[in-house]
Amino acid sequence: MVNERNVEQITDMDEDFGQWFTDIVTKAGLIDYSGVKGFFILRPYACALWENIQAVLDTRFKELGHENVSMPLLIPESLLQKEKDHVAGFAPEVAWVTHGGAEELAERLCVRPTSETLFCDHWAHVVRSWRDLPMLYNQWCSVLRWEKSTRPFLRGREFLWQEGHTLHATAEEAELETQQMLNVYADLCEDYLAMPVVKGIKTDKEKFAGALATYTVECMMHDKKALQSGTSHYFGDGFARAFDIQFSDQENKLCYPHQTSWGLSTRIIGGIIMTHGDNNGLSLPPRIAPTQVMVIPIATHKPGINEKAAELVSRLKATGIRAKADFSDQRPGWKFAEYEMKGIPLRIEIGPKDIENDQCVAARRDNGERQPITLDKLESRVPELLGDIQKSLYNRAKENLTHNTRSAVTFEEAKNILSQHGGFVKTMWCGKHECEVRMKEEAGVTSRCIPFEQERIGDACPICGAPSDTSIVWGVAY
Amino acid sequence: MVNERNVEQITDMDEDFGQWFTDIVTKAGLIDYSGVKGFFILRPYACALWENIQAVLDTRFKELGHENVSMPLLIPESLLQKEKDHVAGFAPEVAWVTHGGAEELAERLCVRPTSETLFCDHWAHVVRSWRDLPMLYNQWCSVLRWEKSTRPFLRGREFLWQEGHTLHATAEEAELETQQMLNVYADLCEDYLAMPVVKGIKTDKEKFAGALATYTVECMMHDKKALQSGTSHYFGDGFARAFDIQFSDQENKLCYPHQTSWGLSTRIIGGIIMTHGDNNGLSLPPRIAPTQVMVIPIATHKPGINEKAAELVSRLKATGIRAKADFSDQRPGWKFAEYEMKGIPLRIEIGPKDIENDQCVAARRDNGERQPITLDKLESRVPELLGDIQKSLYNRAKENLTHNTRSAVTFEEAKNILSQHGGFVKTMWCGKHECEVRMKEEAGVTSRCIPFEQERIGDACPICGAPSDTSIVWGVAY
Repeated sequence: MVNERNVEQITDMDEDFGQWFTDIVTKAGLIDYSGVKGFFILRPYACALWENIQAVLDTRFKELGHENVSMPLLIPESLLQKEKDHVAGFAPEVAWVTHGGAEELAERLCVRPTSETLFCDHWAHVVRSWRDLPMLYNQWCSVLRWEKSTRPFLRGREFLWQEGHTLHATAEEAELETQQMLNVYADLCEDYLAMPVVKGIKTDKEKFAGALATYTVECMMHDKKALQSGTSHYFGDGFARAFDIQFSDQENKLCYPHQTSWGLSTRIIGGIIMTHGDNNGLSLPPRIAPTQVMVIPIATHKPGINEKAAELVSRLKATGIRAKADFSDQRPGWKFAEYEMKGIPLRIEIGPKDIENDQCVAARRDNGERQPITLDKLESRVPELLGDIQKSLYNRAKENLTHNTRSAVTFEEAKNILSQHGGFVKTMWCGKHECEVRMKEEAGVTSRCIPFEQERIGDACPICGAPSDTSIVWGVAY
Repeated sequence: MVNERNVEQITDMDEDFGQWFTDIVTKAGLIDYSGVKGFFILRPYACALWENIQAVLDTRFKELGHENVSMPLLIPESLLQKEKDHVAGFAPEVAWVTHGGAEELAERLCVRPTSETLFCDHWAHVVRSWRDLPMLYNQWCSVLRWEKSTRPFLRGREFLWQEGHTLHATAEEAELETQQMLNVYADLCEDYLAMPVVKGIKTDKEKFAGALATYTVECMMHDKKALQSGTSHYFGDGFARAFDIQFSDQENKLCYPHQTSWGLSTRIIGGIIMTHGDNNGLSLPPRIAPTQVMVIPIATHKPGINEKAAELVSRLKATGIRAKADFSDQRPGWKFAEYEMKGIPLRIEIGPKDIENDQCVAARRDNGERQPITLDKLESRVPELLGDIQKSLYNRAKENLTHNTRSAVTFEEAKNILSQHGGFVKTMWCGKHECEVRMKEEAGVTSRCIPFEQERIGDACPICGAPSDTSIVWGVAY
């Protein structure tokens, strides 16, 4: 692969994965740093990627009956405090507005870290009868969490996300919603982002503040660490009781409704980078890439070359492919490196010899393979190649996950695997908080989830030896 | 028109227009009030309306080469202060974040009231050469302005908007951009929202803080007051100098680029309400209505009725029409009133007699006309009717604007017109700030704009008598 410009600018991912990541987010034009720590500027390329993710999710949410709303940015301190577990989880990391114009506010207002309290306050106004349920709401917005250490996409003091909030007449219906939305996230990850997931439920220690149950999709990054990629929470009627939301059922009896919330954020872009990227830069799954095909005219000074490149772009666009050409006066080698850095799935080169031979040359970003395409096969071969790239990225990530997930029966075994290989370790677990804490202290990992796909790895919790029939996945998480 | 439920609940618009407006925004399910003054919850119906407006604008912005970005929510005080006119305009009305978690911040941060300073800070990092220009950026977000008196849509402490920000090599190119984007707003208003506009330039007194020129589209509401519906600003190189943004041109000379910004907000939803609404509720232009056709099955207990209604919805959807049916157990009269309140442009009733006659009945929201449609003509007649409704709403608004815009040669004449009729008054104007102030003090109006369509109403400024060849439009503004 040609790398005239960038090869010296980007850190080797196997030497320093963190620095490699930071290099990618800036060199691929995703991020700029703002003047405030932990606040990142999403440049057009990152925004376009997020918009594609939004489009997939928003369409799916609406198919499932959800409606978008827009809640206020600010939450009065007294409102945040209404649900005690929730405020305990979030109060230490919120930003406070204390002045409006020249005046000090009578009550300080926090910038939303998440909006459960706002949705509940609204529902208390509008929910009266069983006819009003379910409430199936979502909002696209940014939230603030005053994190100490920050990294682009992975941990920002501000990030973009969607937060779904729903209210149901019965616990069963709310539970089903929670799992349905987890599956929406899993499908996004696997089918669009080519990121295989482990689906499961969080332990009490790791669940969302105020939730009865938190479901999660966990992905393994190239460096074998875990990324929690989307979560879905079941609240029972705890918030409804705290906010006095009641509805009269069909027998005219007053009941508390049951609630869920679920969110996925721009952190997933960090996941895409760390799953598929390599030492040449980003590598984007075709189904989500803002530009799927970049056409590079070779020897642009010769007559007819640019015209031919433009024609290929039009033909590809007519097929529904997101294609562009670069007609700038930069050299082809520069362009090749630039679009490899940006992770564009397929490059098409077209030069005088190609035109003579009635062909163009397609170069895959995922494996560097180059192959000629007869021009009259363009509309069939390019979608095939994009499909192959999508599959190959998924398979490679799946292999990384499978290869780096190991089972351990004893605590020693688990610790050895983690110190030698990293990755995920599956063990049995007794369910006790202390064993999770010990695992963290002695093996440096947290529980990722109790996977839906349960396995019988042994009979006992490897940490305390108590009998157990529950398997759990451990790993180091972003 | 049938009004079983709502007619007693909504204030007569000719008795108390302000209360009528407040009634509409709540009864039509657009808004709920949050616990913080001036922060309004956009309920699903308002959000869907805003999404339709977003889709029109976002598509157009992208066609014109703009890219979306996401800038931080917070601006350091020192950054806001870099351009002195700008900070003077905005500092008195911003909300300040002073604490992150438990810690007091070293420098307080304001929640963005607008993002010129953030865009400039970013451009200072990334703009180097003429190759980087133009920068054609936009962002969709919410902004905060700590207003004293607030009203849903019209004046909120938080509102949703888009803010476009562009940077150009030459003043001419930036000026063209400013006017191009004003025309995008004018087209949105006239072609989609059925709101005729007066296009023009703001006086120095009314222009945006820090701008050299502010262009505006002004619309007349049903109560004859003005709504500034979209603005586009030309900044020259003032911000570039304040933020030290320079580029090397093709001769390698360092130059300051020229800048624009332009914005349109959810305030436009207030404009739609106040342009087209009536005493039965909202009335939405079909091109922007979340639901264009509501099908109401009559005598739902009879066999085949609901099925037929569902079939009509499918057929309409297949034609690209946003259609729904209401199968709930509410009575038809309740449903009629409900969807009139929500301003759905066309209602289609289908009952047993209609099915016998192979027809349905279409009822227009704009004028109450009911007419049978032969079922095999559904796919042609419904789009025709929606087109007619769109035109008729526009024409009615245009007539309101024309009828209530009067010319005055003398100050007395202007004052008489305004006290007797309200509406817009056109006069000549000398260009002096004092005359604007006097007009405000003595006639209670502000200058709306110096319209692009200039007229020779007289020879002199009616206020001071100085010779003038510039005409101006005055009115009371929201």
